[in-house]
Amino acid sequence: MNFSKEQLQDFCYQIFLKMNVSEKHAALASKVLIEADLRGIDSHGLARLSGYLRLWEKGRINANANPKIIRETLSTATVDAEGGFGLIAAPFAMQIAIDKAKQCGSGWVSVKNSNHFGIGAYHAMMALEHDMIGISMTNASPLVAPTLSKERMLGTNPMCYVFPSKKHLPIVIDMATSTAANGKLEIAQRLGKELPSGWVQTKEGEPSTDANALKNGGSLLPLGSDKDHGSHKGYGLGAAVDILSAVLSGANFGPWVPPFVAFLDPDPNPVGEGIGHFFGAMRVDAFREKEEYFNSIDTWIERFKNAERIDPTQAVLIPGEPEFECYAKRSKEGIMLNEVVLEDLRELGAKMGIEL
Amino acid sequence: MNFSKEQLQDFCYQIFLKMNVSEKHAALASKVLIEADLRGIDSHGLARLSGYLRLWEKGRINANANPKIIRETLSTATVDAEGGFGLIAAPFAMQIAIDKAKQCGSGWVSVKNSNHFGIGAYHAMMALEHDMIGISMTNASPLVAPTLSKERMLGTNPMCYVFPSKKHLPIVIDMATSTAANGKLEIAQRLGKELPSGWVQTKEGEPSTDANALKNGGSLLPLGSDKDHGSHKGYGLGAAVDILSAVLSGANFGPWVPPFVAFLDPDPNPVGEGIGHFFGAMRVDAFREKEEYFNSIDTWIERFKNAERIDPTQAVLIPGEPEFECYAKRSKEGIMLNEVVLEDLRELGAKMGIEL
Repeated sequence: MNFSKEQLQDFCYQIFLKMNVSEKHAALASKVLIEADLRGIDSHGLARLSGYLRLWEKGRINANANPKIIRETLSTATVDAEGGFGLIAAPFAMQIAIDKAKQCGSGWVSVKNSNHFGIGAYHAMMALEHDMIGISMTNASPLVAPTLSKERMLGTNPMCYVFPSKKHLPIVIDMATSTAANGKLEIAQRLGKELPSGWVQTKEGEPSTDANALKNGGSLLPLGSDKDHGSHKGYGLGAAVDILSAVLSGANFGPWVPPFVAFLDPDPNPVGEGIGHFFGAMRVDAFREKEEYFNSIDTWIERFKNAERIDPTQAVLIPGEPEFECYAKRSKEGIMLNEVVLEDLRELGAKMGIEL
Repeated sequence: MNFSKEQLQDFCYQIFLKMNVSEKHAALASKVLIEADLRGIDSHGLARLSGYLRLWEKGRINANANPKIIRETLSTATVDAEGGFGLIAAPFAMQIAIDKAKQCGSGWVSVKNSNHFGIGAYHAMMALEHDMIGISMTNASPLVAPTLSKERMLGTNPMCYVFPSKKHLPIVIDMATSTAANGKLEIAQRLGKELPSGWVQTKEGEPSTDANALKNGGSLLPLGSDKDHGSHKGYGLGAAVDILSAVLSGANFGPWVPPFVAFLDPDPNPVGEGIGHFFGAMRVDAFREKEEYFNSIDTWIERFKNAERIDPTQAVLIPGEPEFECYAKRSKEGIMLNEVVLEDLRELGAKMGIEL
């Protein structure tokens, strides 16, 4: 069953209103959420709505938060998200980065006291219409073990880099710093399938292909999977995201990041407030004549699209290309929700008196 | 045979003088180069000296270059390295980033028309004494194939993030965005050993464990190794480094980056000038009270050092820890050069009339 973007966005909007979120914020949060489904990042869209609701029911999300700047320089700022939705704090912070870039070439914003911000690409892509490079990152609940460790110390801590272009679609690099994101494990679990090696390890730190390894106390592996294949690099990237997002802003970091699932309680002795994000914007014309930049980036895209293929039927992709294709398709044909998500949403709707 | 840091640095200094580099620049370039050997990044230190010399002999390095700012805003700048040594242009550009961060919180500098810059960590670590976060990146000669391609399109394009600390050693994340750096292949070649799977592919794009695969026209694989293990992420990171370093500055990008080896000619139709770098500096107190930042980062380091070990005898490492250990050891005991490098340097010395 396919739903139109408008249908789903309105459903979300109504649910956010029921949580006493203001109309303005409800419209924004539902837009950010549906963008994930449109881009094909199903694990970060509507599938998360009931998770947000449960956190709110537990009093762990402040529906009336108004994110505010608590410290700033000409090119930087720190934002307190006041314990509210990351879906709202993130675009607020990214807009500050953009405004600062207008003034002085670049803008950089670290955010504390926030919650899950949806997909990084939404926020970083706000830079595009201003001919700016956009950057977004966030830390997340600990699931990933550093190289040589069996303990969950880092989230899948994604980083996103977005580069504007002219003739072609922009370049959107949006990636978890673990080998596989949790969403991929959940799919394998549902299908009862084995995982590729190098995604997870058991509680004892043994390599595993069991889709339930994480459920049973194991951990995800950093990008690179093992020492021979550079897992210390994935660990390093996850660490950089954690520090920029949380040590710089005053949010919780590492194993102290509060869990997204409401049935697990946050650490009673936190080292900061909420979770953290980091955003950046740079004007391309702060570095180079706009026209020259756009000529070069379009050449870059054309050349990489035409890189020699291994399989003649499989084209080399530009980062972000599959998501743009999905976006176009789903904007036209609607969004198909999987059964589990649909049932979950209908239950949620019934409880809140909103029909889907 | 062990050499003292001073001995090797002086040898380098004399060689640079013979290339008609100014005294000031020769001192800087030799310091940057020896730093790589001290930190244990042997492939990027003295072992490169004869490579630099051959490029200079071919007229591909301008020994009298004076890097200069060609465009700037309050928080950004673009530098023209005038075809000189990256070893000199990089610290120049990083200093600009630091000066801008002093003024407005952060500074960001893209560099064109440069050459190999040694190790990224040297430049990014310049931020540390100013209580700033340091970032450095560079593109490099094409050796890495994007996911689904068999063509060398990107360099090993390293990125480096450095975070200052107080009680402990700083965090230094310095990593190629390929699974393995070229230096590791050369070691396996010398020892006649097989490579782990996932490092290289053949000219036809077939997975390979042959240490000579690259020599025979194959390519390195992006961090992640294959699609199942996130090679599109390594490809994305390498792309981001390429664009920030070169598309933003006007240097050559992708397959057009001139080869480091002098026996290969640069593309006769370049898309830019030389190779490109990118640097960043952010004041920690632009985001948070210094003392709070330092308390948090020290807590971060302590907690990660104490993460549960898989093997009780192998401690979890903080990024940069092994290099600091090597630095301390080699500063005291001297630097042991391997036979091939030593022979190469003595040959070079004989030719230039400098004794080692």
